[in-house]
Amino acid sequence: MAIGAWILIALMCVFWCEVESKYMVYNTTSKIAPGKLNVHLVAHTHDDVGWLKTVDQYYVGSNNSIQGACVQNVLDSIVPALLADKNRKFIYVEQAFFQRWWRDQSEAVQETVKQLINSGQLELINGGMCMHDEAATHYIDMIDQTTLGHRFIKSEFNVTPRIGWQIDPFGHSAVQAYLLSAEVGFDSLFFARIDYQDRAKRKDEKSLEVVWRGSKSLGSSSQIFAGVFPENYDPPSNFNYEVNDDSPIVQDNMELFDYNVPERVNEFVAAALSQANITRTNHVMWTMGTDFKYQYAHTWFRQMDKFIHYVNQDGRVNALYSTPSIYTDAKYATNKAWPLKTDDYFPYADRINAYWTGYFTSRPALKGYVRTMSSYYLAARQLEFFKGRSKVGPNTDSLADALAIAQHHDAVSGTSKQHVADDYAKRLSIGYEETAKVVESSLASMTRSSSKADSGSPVTEFHQCLLLNISYCPPSEVDLSNGKNLVVVVYNPLGWKREDVIRIPVIDENVIVKDSGGKEIESQLLPLQNASLAIRNYYSVAYLGKFPSATPKYWLAFSASAPPIGFNTYFISRGKRPVIATASKSHVVYSSEEKRSDVIEVGPGDVKLVYSKNQGKLIRYINSRTMVKESVRQSYSFYSGDDGSVDEQASGAYIFRPNHTYHTRSDGQASFTVLRGPLLDEVHQRINSWIYQITRVYKGKEYAEFEFTVGPIPIDDGIGKEVVTQISTHMKTNKTFYTDSSGRDFIERIRDYRKDWNLELNQPVAGNYYPIDLGLYIKDDSKELSVLVDRSVGGASIKDGQLELMLHRRLLHDDNRGVAEALNETVCVQNKCSGLTIVGKYYLRIDPLGEAAKWRRSFGQEIYSPFLLAFTEQDGDEWANSRILSFSGMDPSYVLPDNVAMITLQELDDGKVLLRLAHLYEIGEDKDLSVMASVQVKKVFAHKKINEVTEMSLSANQGRAEMEKKRLVWKVEGSSGESPKVVRGGPVDPSILVVELAPMEIRTFVIEFH
Amino acid sequence: MAIGAWILIALMCVFWCEVESKYMVYNTTSKIAPGKLNVHLVAHTHDDVGWLKTVDQYYVGSNNSIQGACVQNVLDSIVPALLADKNRKFIYVEQAFFQRWWRDQSEAVQETVKQLINSGQLELINGGMCMHDEAATHYIDMIDQTTLGHRFIKSEFNVTPRIGWQIDPFGHSAVQAYLLSAEVGFDSLFFARIDYQDRAKRKDEKSLEVVWRGSKSLGSSSQIFAGVFPENYDPPSNFNYEVNDDSPIVQDNMELFDYNVPERVNEFVAAALSQANITRTNHVMWTMGTDFKYQYAHTWFRQMDKFIHYVNQDGRVNALYSTPSIYTDAKYATNKAWPLKTDDYFPYADRINAYWTGYFTSRPALKGYVRTMSSYYLAARQLEFFKGRSKVGPNTDSLADALAIAQHHDAVSGTSKQHVADDYAKRLSIGYEETAKVVESSLASMTRSSSKADSGSPVTEFHQCLLLNISYCPPSEVDLSNGKNLVVVVYNPLGWKREDVIRIPVIDENVIVKDSGGKEIESQLLPLQNASLAIRNYYSVAYLGKFPSATPKYWLAFSASAPPIGFNTYFISRGKRPVIATASKSHVVYSSEEKRSDVIEVGPGDVKLVYSKNQGKLIRYINSRTMVKESVRQSYSFYSGDDGSVDEQASGAYIFRPNHTYHTRSDGQASFTVLRGPLLDEVHQRINSWIYQITRVYKGKEYAEFEFTVGPIPIDDGIGKEVVTQISTHMKTNKTFYTDSSGRDFIERIRDYRKDWNLELNQPVAGNYYPIDLGLYIKDDSKELSVLVDRSVGGASIKDGQLELMLHRRLLHDDNRGVAEALNETVCVQNKCSGLTIVGKYYLRIDPLGEAAKWRRSFGQEIYSPFLLAFTEQDGDEWANSRILSFSGMDPSYVLPDNVAMITLQELDDGKVLLRLAHLYEIGEDKDLSVMASVQVKKVFAHKKINEVTEMSLSANQGRAEMEKKRLVWKVEGSSGESPKVVRGGPVDPSILVVELAPMEIRTFVIEFH
Repeated sequence: MAIGAWILIALMCVFWCEVESKYMVYNTTSKIAPGKLNVHLVAHTHDDVGWLKTVDQYYVGSNNSIQGACVQNVLDSIVPALLADKNRKFIYVEQAFFQRWWRDQSEAVQETVKQLINSGQLELINGGMCMHDEAATHYIDMIDQTTLGHRFIKSEFNVTPRIGWQIDPFGHSAVQAYLLSAEVGFDSLFFARIDYQDRAKRKDEKSLEVVWRGSKSLGSSSQIFAGVFPENYDPPSNFNYEVNDDSPIVQDNMELFDYNVPERVNEFVAAALSQANITRTNHVMWTMGTDFKYQYAHTWFRQMDKFIHYVNQDGRVNALYSTPSIYTDAKYATNKAWPLKTDDYFPYADRINAYWTGYFTSRPALKGYVRTMSSYYLAARQLEFFKGRSKVGPNTDSLADALAIAQHHDAVSGTSKQHVADDYAKRLSIGYEETAKVVESSLASMTRSSSKADSGSPVTEFHQCLLLNISYCPPSEVDLSNGKNLVVVVYNPLGWKREDVIRIPVIDENVIVKDSGGKEIESQLLPLQNASLAIRNYYSVAYLGKFPSATPKYWLAFSASAPPIGFNTYFISRGKRPVIATASKSHVVYSSEEKRSDVIEVGPGDVKLVYSKNQGKLIRYINSRTMVKESVRQSYSFYSGDDGSVDEQASGAYIFRPNHTYHTRSDGQASFTVLRGPLLDEVHQRINSWIYQITRVYKGKEYAEFEFTVGPIPIDDGIGKEVVTQISTHMKTNKTFYTDSSGRDFIERIRDYRKDWNLELNQPVAGNYYPIDLGLYIKDDSKELSVLVDRSVGGASIKDGQLELMLHRRLLHDDNRGVAEALNETVCVQNKCSGLTIVGKYYLRIDPLGEAAKWRRSFGQEIYSPFLLAFTEQDGDEWANSRILSFSGMDPSYVLPDNVAMITLQELDDGKVLLRLAHLYEIGEDKDLSVMASVQVKKVFAHKKINEVTEMSLSANQGRAEMEKKRLVWKVEGSSGESPKVVRGGPVDPSILVVELAPMEIRTFVIEFH
Repeated sequence: MAIGAWILIALMCVFWCEVESKYMVYNTTSKIAPGKLNVHLVAHTHDDVGWLKTVDQYYVGSNNSIQGACVQNVLDSIVPALLADKNRKFIYVEQAFFQRWWRDQSEAVQETVKQLINSGQLELINGGMCMHDEAATHYIDMIDQTTLGHRFIKSEFNVTPRIGWQIDPFGHSAVQAYLLSAEVGFDSLFFARIDYQDRAKRKDEKSLEVVWRGSKSLGSSSQIFAGVFPENYDPPSNFNYEVNDDSPIVQDNMELFDYNVPERVNEFVAAALSQANITRTNHVMWTMGTDFKYQYAHTWFRQMDKFIHYVNQDGRVNALYSTPSIYTDAKYATNKAWPLKTDDYFPYADRINAYWTGYFTSRPALKGYVRTMSSYYLAARQLEFFKGRSKVGPNTDSLADALAIAQHHDAVSGTSKQHVADDYAKRLSIGYEETAKVVESSLASMTRSSSKADSGSPVTEFHQCLLLNISYCPPSEVDLSNGKNLVVVVYNPLGWKREDVIRIPVIDENVIVKDSGGKEIESQLLPLQNASLAIRNYYSVAYLGKFPSATPKYWLAFSASAPPIGFNTYFISRGKRPVIATASKSHVVYSSEEKRSDVIEVGPGDVKLVYSKNQGKLIRYINSRTMVKESVRQSYSFYSGDDGSVDEQASGAYIFRPNHTYHTRSDGQASFTVLRGPLLDEVHQRINSWIYQITRVYKGKEYAEFEFTVGPIPIDDGIGKEVVTQISTHMKTNKTFYTDSSGRDFIERIRDYRKDWNLELNQPVAGNYYPIDLGLYIKDDSKELSVLVDRSVGGASIKDGQLELMLHRRLLHDDNRGVAEALNETVCVQNKCSGLTIVGKYYLRIDPLGEAAKWRRSFGQEIYSPFLLAFTEQDGDEWANSRILSFSGMDPSYVLPDNVAMITLQELDDGKVLLRLAHLYEIGEDKDLSVMASVQVKKVFAHKKINEVTEMSLSANQGRAEMEKKRLVWKVEGSSGESPKVVRGGPVDPSILVVELAPMEIRTFVIEFH
C-alpha cells in the first residue's frame, strides 16, 4: 500500500458536509449610502474603432489571431445580462460599433434595448462615432464625428449623452474640455492618461478631479468637471472578470473548496480605501472593464453581483452599480469646490523616457489624407445643400462615416497597425468617390442656367484632381490643340471672397488662361521637376495600378478668385504665351547684382527671402511692407530613434524617444535653383537624396510656403529616423512658444516647464513636443514668427528663437504600447517596397508683434479649406455662353465678417439645415478682430426663406437653451461663489436673425426653411 | 499634401453602398437529407473533472492563470443559446460538473433545463460523474461512477443516456466497450485516441467505425457500435468558435468589409468531403467543441447557424444540428454491415516514439489510494446496508463522489498537475473520514447483542488503521499491561468464507492472540525494520503533522478467518508467548545444511522459494504439491526517462519514453536476511539505498508476496527514472502474454505485434506495455506464471519467459501533452522535500498449465477486498461475554459459488437495495468454474423478506428488459445475418429467486424488501 496525501484533516468538512445547497439570490439593490464610502462600479468596455484590427474586424470578431476581440459579443451579451437584474448598469461609448450592431438586431431586440436605455440601465455616453484622438484631430472633425453619433442617439433613442469619456487618448486637449464636453452639454469628462508626474502630484493633493476651463476666451461659461482615473481605465488589479481572466473570483459556494468571501471582501475594501485616500468626497469610481471586455457580460456581472452583496453585508464600504452620470451627480450633490485646471494635459508621458509625442507625426500621409478629406467634406456638404441632398445617394454620408472613424485615437493618431491604417484610407477613398459624385453633379447642376437654352443639353461631366499632390491630374493633362477649352470651376468654401494662385499640370507650354469674362489673365509656367515626375509615376502604379498615360511638362499657375461659398470659372486653351511672362527657358534667373554677390533675394512681392548662394541656404526674411526683417535659418535634421536596447523603450508609433540628433548632410548632390515668375518665385533645394524642398513666395501673399518631399527615409544603416525641419532666428523668446489646441485656441508653452507641477525632465526634446493642428509661433518684443501646417504634426521650440516640426518618421522598433509593429511605412510595386515618401507643406510668416493673428486665423482657414477645383472640357466658347460662370451661396452683397468662419453648412436627413458659425479669434488676440461679430443669417441664405432658426448644442442633439438649463454649475476652489462673467453672443431675435459671436464662440443652429 | 493609400478603387462599394441592412434570420431547420452527404454538427464541450485545475476550480472558473476554464459559464450560457433557436442542440457529458451546476440553479432555470432535455435539445450522454480513464480504472469503480451519474439523470430527468462518449481517454479498454457501453444500454460509443498507425489504416479502409465485441465470453450479446474520430475531438481545423478563437468567422454582412460567405462555404464543403472520403455511409460527424469550450455558447451557435444556412443554400452537402444519438440512428438506418473489432485499443501512441504507457504507472501512491478506497467503499456499503442508511449522514455518499471523481482520465491516470492530484486525495480523505464513521457505527451496532444485557452500555468506539502500509496503527500500539484486551473485528466483504494472515504493529513482545472462543491461536512476531520505522515517522509528520507517540517493535501476525459478508472477532492480550513459536531472537535462521551450501529454501508450506545466498537472489520457485518447479530470477531495473533533447519527446506523466535500461546496482550496502516462523517466512533484501524488498511465503498459501519499498528515487544525476521489477524464467512463451482489461477479461498480447495492423515499432519497450489492474501472466506448454497487483500499474513481457511491472516513476521533464509539469512527486517536511516513496505489493504464483485461473480470479478478489479490521479496547473478557463475536450477512449455511463475486450491495436513497453479482471467469478459463453459476438471492438476504427483484441495466438506470428491447442490432461485415448464440443466465423466476450467471456475466438488480 502506498502513501499519499490521504489524511489531510478534513477541515473543509465544516462547510462540505453541513451546508444544503440552494439557489443564491444576490442583493444588488444598493444605492448611494450617505454616511459611507461609496464605490461606484461602472461596468464598461473600451472598444477601439480600429487599432490592431479594423473596425469591421473588431465588430464581427474576425482576425482574432491578432487580437481576441468581438464587439458583437459585447453588445449581444450585455442585453440578457442587464435584463437578468434591473440593478445592473452598463455604459456604451463607441457609436461606430453600436450602430453596426443596431442595424443587425431584430425589432424585438431593438425594442428591448430601447427600454434598457430608457430605464438608464444601458447608458450611451461620449456618444461620438469613436473616442476621437485629441492631438492629431482638428476641432471641426471632432465636432462632426461627435454630431454624427449624438444625432443618431437622439433620433433613435431621444437621449442626449451626459458624460465625456475620453479614457484612452494619449493626452487631453483644451478643446476637448471646453468645446467637445462643455459645449455639447456634458456634465463631466473622464479620462485616464496624464503625465505620470502630474498624476503623482494630483494623487497627493487629491486633485485628480478638477474643474477644467479649457478656453481663456470662454472661461467659466465652458468649464467642465473633469476626472482623471487614479491609474488607468481598468478595474483595480485583481478585479478583472472577462472570460478566462485570472483575477480571483468570489467563491461563495460553501459546498466547494476554496471558499474565499472574507478574503475577497477584504481586498475590495482595501482597494476602495486606498482610492478614497487620493479622492475628495466619499465617492470613488471603479472602471469595471477595459479593452473589448464584456464579450460574455455575464462573467463580470456575476462577480459584481457577489461583491455588492457581500461587501455591503460586510458594511465597511458601500458598493453599488453605477454609471459616470450617477457618479457625477453624487459628486455634484456634495456641493464641494474643486481645484481649477486650465490649458491642457499635453504632452503625455507614462513613465520616464516615454513621451507620447511621436504620434503627433506618425503616419503623416494618413494625417494629410484625413485633413484633405475633412476639408473636402466641409465643401461637399455645402454643394450637397445647394443641390439638395439625396437620401438614396450618392451623398456625403459614407465620407462622413469614414472621416468619423478616422478621428479615432488609433486612426489619425497613426498608432494602428498598417493593415488598419490601410482600412481607414480605404474607407476615406470610398467616401471620397461617392462624395466626388455629389460635388460633380452639384456643380453640374449649379453651372446650368435654367433661363438659358442648355437645359436640354447633356449633363456635364466634371472631374476632380485629388492627386495634385503627386502632380497627377488627367483632366488637366489634355491635348487642347483641337480647339477644346479646359473649363476650371473654382469653388470657394469660405465665407469670404478670396484670391489664390492655382497650379495644375499641363502637357503643353502653349496654353493661356482666361477669366469668366473671357479676358486672358496672367499665368506662369513652371517646369515639372524630374523628382516630382518620378514620384507621380511610382505612386500611380502603386496606388492606381497603372502608369499615367500622359506626361505633363509644366505646372500652369494662375491667380483665381471666387466669391464666398461660391464659384468662379476659368478657361484654359491653346494659345501663344507672351514672352515676358514666362521669364526665360532657363527659369534660373539671378539679377546682375546677385551674380556678383553671394546673396540672392527671392519673392515677387513684399516678402523677400534672402539666400546665401554658396551655402544654398535661407538667411533672411524681409517684409518690405511691415519693415519686418529677421535673420532666419531653415534646415532639416533627424533624430535617430532609440532602439530600446537600453531600457526597452524604443521610439515608435506612440513614443518619441530620440537618442541622437543629426543634421542632414549633403550627399554631394545637393542643389540650389531659383525660378522666378510674375506670380511666384520658387527656390528648389535638393537637400540630399531623400529630401527635396521647394520654397514659394507669391506676389500678393506675405508668407513663404515650404513644400517638402521627404523619403524614402534610408534605414540601411539600421537606424530609424524622425525627420524634422528647423527654423532658427535670433529672436529672444525666453523659452516660450505657442501651439494650437486641436486647431483652435493657442496655448502658451514654456520649454522644460509645466504649470501644474515641478517637471523633472529626462527627455529635453521629446518632453517639449506638442501637437500642432493649425500652427505654432514664437515672439519677442517686436516680432512674431508663425508657422502654419497642412496637417497635424508634432512641433516644438527646442531653443530660444527656434521652432521645429517633425515631418516624417520611419522607425524599426515597436515601442511596447501594444501596436506590436515598427512604424515603418512602405509603398510597394510588384512586391518591391520602399519607404513611404511624404510631400507636404508648411507656411512661414513674420509679423510685427501683435499683428500676426490675422494671418494665422484667416490664412489658417484658407489652408484648411483650399479652393475645390473641378474640370471639364468644352468646345470653343460654348460653356461661357451657356452656363453660369460665377455663383455665391450668400447674398451677392454679403460676406461673412473676417473673424467668422462657417464651419458647417449641411442639409440634414429631415431637410432642415445645420449651420455652425465659429468666431476665429481669441480674446485679446487681435485688436480689431477679437471682438463680438455678427452674422446676418438671412443674407447667408439669401436664396431661401427661413421658417425657424433653433440654436442647438454644439453636437446639435438638443436645444441650446435646454442644455444650458440643465447645466451643472460646479464650484471652483479658492474663488468666490460667482464665476467671472464671460461675454457671449446674445439670443437670436427670430425676426432679424442676426447671430452674435463672441471671441472663440461657436454657435450651432438648425434652420428650417419654408 | 502627402500621399497615402487613398485611391484604392472602391470595389467594396458594390456591397457597401447598395445593400440595405436588415435583421438576418438563419434557416437552421435542416434534418437529414437522404440523397446528400450529411454533416452532423455536434456541439459539445469536453470538461475534464480535474486536470490542470481542480474540479471545483474548473467549475467556478478560478485559478484561470493556469487555464482559462469555467464550466459554470458553459452551462449558464448554453441555456439561452438553446432557447434562442429550437433547432440548436448540445450534449453534456460530465455529471460531476452538471450536478454542481444544477444545485446552483433557480427553480425557473431548472424547469427550463428539464424542457430542453425533454425536447432533446440538451442531451446528457456518457452520463457518469466523469469521463473515466480506461487503463488505470478498475471495472468496479467504472460501474460505480457511471451508476452514480446515470441514476441522478434518471431520477432528475427520467432520461437514460444513449451514447458512450469517451473522447479523451488515452486508449480504450474492452471492458469499456462491452460492459460500460453495451451493458449500460448505450447504442454507440465514440472516442478519439487510438494508435496513429491503426488510425491511418482505418482511414484508408474506412474502418474507423466498427462493431466492437470486447468480451470473448459475451460476444455479440455485448457488442457496441464504436466510432473513432478521424483526428481528435475538435472541429475540423478553422472551425473553432470559442470567444477569441481565431478561426475565420462567417462574415455575411455585405455592409462590412471581408465578406467571405463563398470562401467559408467552400472550405466547409471541402472538409466535409474529405471526411466523407474516409467514412462509410453519407453521414459524417463534426465534433464542434473541445476542452472547456462554449463558455459563451452564443459564439459557436452564431457561426453554426450561418454555416447551416449558407451551406444548405449552396446545396452540395447538407449540414444540420445533430447529436451522437441522431448520428447513430442515421448510421443504423443505413442498414449497413460494419467491420468487426475485438480486444481493445491499447497501447495508444499518437506519433512515433510517443507511447502513452507511462500513465499506467504514474502516481502509484494515488493509484494505490484509489484502489484502497474502492475496496473500502464496497465493504462500507455492505455495512451501511446492514445498519440502515442515513440520508443526513454520516453515509458513504461523499466517498462515492470522491471515488467517482478519482476515476477521471486525468485523476487515477496520474496525469493531473500535482495540486490537482492532492485535491483528489483530499476528497478521498474526506470521504474516508465520513465513511469510516459509517463502518465504525455499523460494526458497533452489529456487535451489540440485542438479547444480552449490554443494550444499555455505552456505544463502542471502533478505530481503524488506514495507515498500516506505513506500519502506523495507534489502536494496536497500546499498552495491554493493565489487563486490557485489544478487540480486533475482522470483516470479510467477500461472499466466501476466508482465512488470511493479519499483521498489526505492537509495542510489546509479550502478547498473545485468542479467537472468539477464547482459545489462544498461533501467532508470530516479526521485528519492525528500521527502514519501516523511518518511513512511518517521516510520513506521519508529513501527512498527519505529528510524530507518532508510540514506537512499535514488532509486527504481530496471526491467521484470521471470517464468514462470507460477515465478521469474526479476535482478542489480543498480554501473555507469555511459547518460546518455540518465536523462533529465535536473531530471527535469521539457516538450517545446518544451508550453512554449508550457497542455496537456501524459504517457505513454511508447499511453496518454496530457493535463493542463492552469495548472490542474495531468488533462483527457483517450487510448489511441492503441484510439483511445479521453475528457475526464476527476480530483479529491479530502471529506465532512464528521455529528456526530450532529441525530438522534444521526453518521458513524462503520460508517455513512457525510455532511452536506456539500467539494472539497479548494489551501492555496497545490499543485504539479504531471512526470517522464519510458523505462519510465514520473510526474506528481506536491501537492494540499494532506495529499494527495499520483503518477500513473504505463507504456510497455507501457494504464492509468494513481494512487498517493495521504492524511493526516494535519486535524481541528483539529472536523470529521471522509471523503476521496474522483472521476473525472468526459462519458459518458452513465444512472445505471448496476457493482461487483464480493467481488472476483468484477460487479453492475449503478442510482443511487437498488433492484430489490427502491421506494426512499425520504434519503442521496443514502451510499445509493448499494457495497463494492469488485476494481473498478467505467461504460459508455456506445461506451466503458467501469474503475477497479481495491488493497484493499477504498467506491465509487459519484454523477453520470452519474462514479465515486468513498472512500480514507480520520477521524471524531470514534461512530455508535452498539456500537463506542463514534470512527474516528480515529493513529500515535504518543513519545506524540505524528498522524492515520494512507494510501498506496494505484488504476488507471484506458478501453476500447472490450465490450473492458474482459480488463483488469479479468487485470490485476485481477495487482493481487491482485503479484510477490513476494526479495533477497540475492552477490559478483561467483557466483550467476549456480552457481544456478538461472529456474523454473516447471508444465511449461515450459504456461501456464494466460487465463481461469483458480489460486487455491489448497497442501500439506495429510496430504501431499495442495489445488488450486483459478477461471474469471475471467462469462457474456457477453468475447467470447473467457467460454467453457469447460480446464486440464491433468498439466502443472500436471509435476514430480510424480499418483495420484488427487478433486473436492471448495469448502471441501474432502467429495467434490463426495457433496455434489451430498445437495443440496436448492428450487422457485422462478413458474417451471416445471425450472430453466434451466446449463453447468458436466464430470467429470474420471482418465486425462487435464483440468479444464473454465465461466464463473465454481471447482473444488476434492484431489490425491494417488505
